[in-house]
Amino acid sequence: MSHEVLAFGEALLRLQPASDDRLEEAGLFHAYVGGAELNTCYALASLGRDVAWFSVLPENVLGRRVLRHLRASGADVSLVRTAPGRLGTYWVEHGREPRSIEVLYDRKESTVCRVRREDAPWDALKAARIFYVSGITPALSPATRELAFEMAETARAAGVTVATDLNFRSRLWSAGDAAPVLERLARSADIVIATEDDLRTLYGLEGERDDVARRAQERFGSATLVVTCGSDGGVSVRRGSDQVRRCGPFPVSRIDRVGAGDGFTAGFLYATLLGREERALDYGLALAALKHSIPGDTLTTTPAELETILARDSREIRR
Amino acid sequence: MSHEVLAFGEALLRLQPASDDRLEEAGLFHAYVGGAELNTCYALASLGRDVAWFSVLPENVLGRRVLRHLRASGADVSLVRTAPGRLGTYWVEHGREPRSIEVLYDRKESTVCRVRREDAPWDALKAARIFYVSGITPALSPATRELAFEMAETARAAGVTVATDLNFRSRLWSAGDAAPVLERLARSADIVIATEDDLRTLYGLEGERDDVARRAQERFGSATLVVTCGSDGGVSVRRGSDQVRRCGPFPVSRIDRVGAGDGFTAGFLYATLLGREERALDYGLALAALKHSIPGDTLTTTPAELETILARDSREIRR
Amino acid sequence: MSHEVLAFGEALLRLQPASDDRLEEAGLFHAYVGGAELNTCYALASLGRDVAWFSVLPENVLGRRVLRHLRASGADVSLVRTAPGRLGTYWVEHGREPRSIEVLYDRKESTVCRVRREDAPWDALKAARIFYVSGITPALSPATRELAFEMAETARAAGVTVATDLNFRSRLWSAGDAAPVLERLARSADIVIATEDDLRTLYGLEGERDDVARRAQERFGSATLVVTCGSDGGVSVRRGSDQVRRCGPFPVSRIDRVGAGDGFTAGFLYATLLGREERALDYGLALAALKHSIPGDTLTTTPAELETILARDSREIRR
Amino acid sequence: MSHEVLAFGEALLRLQPASDDRLEEAGLFHAYVGGAELNTCYALASLGRDVAWFSVLPENVLGRRVLRHLRASGADVSLVRTAPGRLGTYWVEHGREPRSIEVLYDRKESTVCRVRREDAPWDALKAARIFYVSGITPALSPATRELAFEMAETARAAGVTVATDLNFRSRLWSAGDAAPVLERLARSADIVIATEDDLRTLYGLEGERDDVARRAQERFGSATLVVTCGSDGGVSVRRGSDQVRRCGPFPVSRIDRVGAGDGFTAGFLYATLLGREERALDYGLALAALKHSIPGDTLTTTPAELETILARDSREIRR
Amino acid sequence: MSHEVLAFGEALLRLQPASDDRLEEAGLFHAYVGGAELNTCYALASLGRDVAWFSVLPENVLGRRVLRHLRASGADVSLVRTAPGRLGTYWVEHGREPRSIEVLYDRKESTVCRVRREDAPWDALKAARIFYVSGITPALSPATRELAFEMAETARAAGVTVATDLNFRSRLWSAGDAAPVLERLARSADIVIATEDDLRTLYGLEGERDDVARRAQERFGSATLVVTCGSDGGVSVRRGSDQVRRCGPFPVSRIDRVGAGDGFTAGFLYATLLGREERALDYGLALAALKHSIPGDTLTTTPAELETILARDSREIRR
Amino acid sequence: MSHEVLAFGEALLRLQPASDDRLEEAGLFHAYVGGAELNTCYALASLGRDVAWFSVLPENVLGRRVLRHLRASGADVSLVRTAPGRLGTYWVEHGREPRSIEVLYDRKESTVCRVRREDAPWDALKAARIFYVSGITPALSPATRELAFEMAETARAAGVTVATDLNFRSRLWSAGDAAPVLERLARSADIVIATEDDLRTLYGLEGERDDVARRAQERFGSATLVVTCGSDGGVSVRRGSDQVRRCGPFPVSRIDRVGAGDGFTAGFLYATLLGREERALDYGLALAALKHSIPGDTLTTTPAELETILARDSREIRR
Repeated sequence: MSHEVLAFGEALLRLQPASDDRLEEAGLFHAYVGGAELNTCYALASLGRDVAWFSVLPENVLGRRVLRHLRASGADVSLVRTAPGRLGTYWVEHGREPRSIEVLYDRKESTVCRVRREDAPWDALKAARIFYVSGITPALSPATRELAFEMAETARAAGVTVATDLNFRSRLWSAGDAAPVLERLARSADIVIATEDDLRTLYGLEGERDDVARRAQERFGSATLVVTCGSDGGVSVRRGSDQVRRCGPFPVSRIDRVGAGDGFTAGFLYATLLGREERALDYGLALAALKHSIPGDTLTTTPAELETILARDSREIRR
Repeated sequence: MSHEVLAFGEALLRLQPASDDRLEEAGLFHAYVGGAELNTCYALASLGRDVAWFSVLPENVLGRRVLRHLRASGADVSLVRTAPGRLGTYWVEHGREPRSIEVLYDRKESTVCRVRREDAPWDALKAARIFYVSGITPALSPATRELAFEMAETARAAGVTVATDLNFRSRLWSAGDAAPVLERLARSADIVIATEDDLRTLYGLEGERDDVARRAQERFGSATLVVTCGSDGGVSVRRGSDQVRRCGPFPVSRIDRVGAGDGFTAGFLYATLLGREERALDYGLALAALKHSIPGDTLTTTPAELETILARDSREIRR
Repeated sequence: MSHEVLAFGEALLRLQPASDDRLEEAGLFHAYVGGAELNTCYALASLGRDVAWFSVLPENVLGRRVLRHLRASGADVSLVRTAPGRLGTYWVEHGREPRSIEVLYDRKESTVCRVRREDAPWDALKAARIFYVSGITPALSPATRELAFEMAETARAAGVTVATDLNFRSRLWSAGDAAPVLERLARSADIVIATEDDLRTLYGLEGERDDVARRAQERFGSATLVVTCGSDGGVSVRRGSDQVRRCGPFPVSRIDRVGAGDGFTAGFLYATLLGREERALDYGLALAALKHSIPGDTLTTTPAELETILARDSREIRR
Repeated sequence: MSHEVLAFGEALLRLQPASDDRLEEAGLFHAYVGGAELNTCYALASLGRDVAWFSVLPENVLGRRVLRHLRASGADVSLVRTAPGRLGTYWVEHGREPRSIEVLYDRKESTVCRVRREDAPWDALKAARIFYVSGITPALSPATRELAFEMAETARAAGVTVATDLNFRSRLWSAGDAAPVLERLARSADIVIATEDDLRTLYGLEGERDDVARRAQERFGSATLVVTCGSDGGVSVRRGSDQVRRCGPFPVSRIDRVGAGDGFTAGFLYATLLGREERALDYGLALAALKHSIPGDTLTTTPAELETILARDSREIRR
Repeated sequence: MSHEVLAFGEALLRLQPASDDRLEEAGLFHAYVGGAELNTCYALASLGRDVAWFSVLPENVLGRRVLRHLRASGADVSLVRTAPGRLGTYWVEHGREPRSIEVLYDRKESTVCRVRREDAPWDALKAARIFYVSGITPALSPATRELAFEMAETARAAGVTVATDLNFRSRLWSAGDAAPVLERLARSADIVIATEDDLRTLYGLEGERDDVARRAQERFGSATLVVTCGSDGGVSVRRGSDQVRRCGPFPVSRIDRVGAGDGFTAGFLYATLLGREERALDYGLALAALKHSIPGDTLTTTPAELETILARDSREIRR
Repeated sequence: MSHEVLAFGEALLRLQPASDDRLEEAGLFHAYVGGAELNTCYALASLGRDVAWFSVLPENVLGRRVLRHLRASGADVSLVRTAPGRLGTYWVEHGREPRSIEVLYDRKESTVCRVRREDAPWDALKAARIFYVSGITPALSPATRELAFEMAETARAAGVTVATDLNFRSRLWSAGDAAPVLERLARSADIVIATEDDLRTLYGLEGERDDVARRAQERFGSATLVVTCGSDGGVSVRRGSDQVRRCGPFPVSRIDRVGAGDGFTAGFLYATLLGREERALDYGLALAALKHSIPGDTLTTTPAELETILARDSREIRR
């Protein structure tokens, strides 16, 4: 049981009007299973990779729903624990212009918030190739924070590559509270992914985009530092390299942007697992674009489709 | 601002698969606004009565959804307060035979649980004709319990008729915890409605159905004691009367049984407001039957439709 | 262009909640094309018969919708005229117990109400085997009434079999107004179909069901008189015969009862066209039952399916 | 019972395919309650303003549907009268390029067409801050025309601000018939809103957009004259001012453009009620843009959302 | 990799109108993954058993759909092979009375028909506790027939319990062709399940139900012979025992009867795996009843729900 | 029975997710009837032309579905033959960017593949004004190929105009196999329509678009040669003319692009039938654009709508 990627995080259920109706009035809702690390695992498993997701789910029908959803992708859910309690939910209104997307969290006190040290799959962790945890997990509770750190540090000590996406969520905690915690997480990681906005907001990094990337890499000391820039694509920098790699975005259809960042991470890690680090930014941006066209938090695809998107790349003309 | 009925309770949002699919797998969900006292107010307002509902709602889009839903019926929502926090939800799987109906509550820590004494509409309460609170409200939190008692007692002292439906919910509290609380509530009320099962479970009342009714009336000292018996109809007994009134059920379509008990209460109070106490049991059973045919927690009807159902009554042949 | 059946009547558009929601609240509605004679033509065409429907439709998209719907069955719509004006509509709430079915007509001033004598297909009429017009058509306007009579009498004079279903609609006219008009129509017809209730209400026919049938046949002098009795099946009597034929109903699923009477007529006429008059009552009841299982005003079937239903007949045990 | 806004107009039921299917073929339809003045009231009530809508509705389930819909917004419907008769309907096909939007009215002879002088709420009218009636109301029938004029003139005499949106509908009357009637209405009003096209078509106003506005203001003598220019935004001019205020449009999503003009009016009157006349054009354009993103004739929003849209305004860069 | 149950069979995609509309007219269809052995594996995996399904799927998106569906249940799909070709489909019209259920197969030349000996998981087969193959598999092609026999015989020789459900399908082959093939299959099996009708049709077994069971057991020599009798429940007989065990049916809701037989098999095998052979008939009938209430070919449940249904058993009163 | 257009080809059933969900996961599917020649007939019949479609359909419910669909347009289906066998189907995923549209054919061995010479309507063929067959028909089977050639040649010999759209489908046959067959078809035709890509791929035609058109016309010797260029509009050239006519595209909404080419052909033939050859390219492009806005394979319109689109033409500004 040696996984290519092992991840730790929360599962959520998204409720969203099944039409363009407003949350106040809609009669029918889609229910989607999601969660930052879960989404990344789901996409990687769709691509045929051997991944495992660890969490604590409520021992009720909603917990079983999460397992059922993730299993369909082929991901291993045998490490998941269950406990009495609730599943976090969130409500989303799509937000067509001039409305903005409206997100209402109802995720406090979910079962994973009381995760215990002994719940964690320490052996599997040390045997994995990559350990992934996002910056949302330490925001949930003291218990998830401590465990996220310990898992990251244990993994690293065992020679496992540690990856993180800072994923600052201003509705979960303030920038002031988040900055030192996320910095500690980033310092534990070999691969750090962050949005340009988060790096500027949390750490006051300034200057051109390339400078932000370089300064963040220096600050965290991570082997790879990736800055995602929304509709502007992304840049990456590696330790010891002066060169900043830049990629423009792929064309997108704005069906559902939730989970696009997790799609990016999946694409980046997928390329890393295949030894295509030099193209990891492209793989990430391609999956992020694909996610925009697929309803729900998770992303179903195949290696062949991903390669087709990469091959059909017409971004040159728009850069 | 003198209402015919003023009620106090919680609002909930029900989420239920929009098909016969299982909760684990369904993609689309209906979202219904409900709550015992809210449902009763909604039906009474549909019938043209002047009712007001009091509660504390979250100051977010889900709170506004509750107000919007209840306002459509014509009920007065101007007494409702708002506060930061969450709206309780619950998940329901319809449960066609041989499945049983599956209910999963996620209603802890809702905004009404922290209601304050000064939130309550004391003047409107004393000016109402009937005050209604179910036995669910005192089960929610110490604050709702204390306020429910104080409102019932204040109303009674002001000459307002107090009505309650015991509505024991085993998923909210144990029978042992509930029995004394609900007894205190029943003793404060002029009209007490309860299911036969609850009276037997909570208070060990035994014997024939009529005996259960008589003993409950004696125990609580309420002017009117109504026992509902599911598909067997119901019985009622009045203080000082030896006679137990009995009614059989109306024919039902099992579209959605949630809220049928609240429909019964609405019908019973409607007849009471019209001075038709002797037919209140029939009115209650007719609305309970009608509710079974209508999706959602609440019941839309008209006085004309209610009279048609009562007139078309073919229950005699089945008694 | 010699048709087996030619019919004259109104087209309507039914609007009905697409769920069990109430008309006051439903968000989605089914839109169904219907009309007594149209429904009968549709079913006969589905069974492979050569039928034509005559009417006056509005020259707008709703008029085209009616043509499109009827053409799909294979019926000939080339005799239909168009004119400026509106299409009649009606709103239906299904009415699960204890609700009754709720029908709200909005059909006044539809284009067919101003039909002119010269619109009618006189040559095709005289060449048809059967002319069919229901008792609804003369209720719509003076123009439809006069034309219905003239077409029936012209057909008869040309040796065409005239068939009618009295179809009294209390929301269109009073029993007092309808009785003489429908009697004149019945006296013009060779085949008269009526419900037991209508015969009793309109003409005060009394006694057992068989007596009602015999007396109606004598009164109208029609060659064949059929009495339909809802869930009790039907009876028929022929001129000069003492014997009343009786048939019990087929089992039904109550998906949509609208158009069941028109299905009966279609089945009865289908058997008549095939020369199976002695089984016409069975064919009629089989199609009426089938219609109950099919949503919409019209009925799609095949000769093979109809024979299967007739062959599988298990009504004996329930008679 | 002193309302901020009191309006008089017709209610309609819109029927529109629930998909991109054509009206001729669609199986499912949305049913939306609308009407120019009703839509404006609905939006103002959503924004927390105290508004009342006056009309005559059919005393049937569709009439109740209109009341139920409008009550949900918080608007006062207690002034509405009912009478026997029908509710106007209209059919809409969305009309994606290269199709144009297709609208088929079926609104003749609706109950409001026979409104009587004594139905009108004269006392409430004189106590309101603003009276609003659109140019559609006088197009419906002689009775609505006379009452619209009398209400506008009575309001004005009582010091109530009178507002109108000319809203010329070529399917209801010709430009020749409409021009003098709408001119009389405009001359009775303090705030006149009109599209640039209508002003040019009805009154032959020529020149630049600013000139059209100035000439219309001079012609009608209204205190405020607003010209809306579709995707070009709008301009306004005040009596005695040389300066024409201009605003560009907000970004829109073309989900449903029906009711956008009524949204504009609501926004304009909202700002007026708040004493922000100088920004009324922006408020109007913001609500018109928001309406484009919301299905149905009516618009649900909050003051906070409206301010967010105004604050996020990026129109400068596109002007 | 030692499975409790290993099964071999075909996957199919069912297409069924999403409403009560006819196949000729319906616009929307449900698409359900099914197949006799797949359904049995799905239910057993839902119950927490360790099962594997073997087949050959097309290497296209429909093949991936089958894998995704089955994986969600927790079943092991790692033994499945893929090949170029097509997935079998079938069309179903639900068939409310008086319609019968209409099934149209389009399953010829599916990929599994060309399964090769070397595709089969021989090692896993010999290590399993139970091997399950239905009588449909040998009906598909010579290749599936030969492999089904060889797998059954290999399993038996290795001490694996072999189970089969004869599942005669008259649309796939004639009774004359099927009888000897299914007899050979039954003789290879330790547990043989068959409907009473099939046993009478294929082998001319006569007499009372108990006699049919005894004679079938004698004929096949199977350790356990189970006869299912539709709405009459079922009987079972064991080798060497005179006693026939009988069970009545559980109450059912007729939502979707497809797959009820496979649910029975799953329940029977589940009880067998738990060592509750004496109650296997009850477990089978409970799952068959549960399947009737769940849309789709497959059945999601939990051990707790199954026990609840068994405990709530009220069949005694109806026997 | 002299038709304006008679066509020969296959019918297909398209299955496509009813949402943006992926084929692997979608629960609901649209089912659309289509086929290149069928689509063209459907559009022409909607425009009021007298057209007939010839094919061989399975004698089952899916075959009846095809007839029912096509009849609704007004096309004559009386020439269609039936036989035992299957209807071809295909699966489509819409393919929002960056996904490409995914098409999975399952159309082998459909009933039309075994069409016999004696099935064809030789007399009707010789009496028609135009015979239309696309290049898909000869790709299906040897029988369809031989019959397509014989029908084209027979029609031509009888003075019937022969039209074809080459419609090369790389999933049905290779360019090498297709080129000579399609060339023979083109040489039999008076009107040849082809995409620019197909002409370049199949016949190595090079140079500017106009040159491709001229060379194709010379190669095939057809009276009219039309080259469609997707989002670039199209060009046409007539025998003996040096002048190449060019038209830009109409604006489109990308609801459903399937069948747009068949819409083009319908528009081109419609103009030809009306004697407006000089505007045939515009009519074709207008219908192709309209088809993009309509879900399904077929296109419902009216002559008035088509003229409106042509009149509103704003393509000049974009050329």
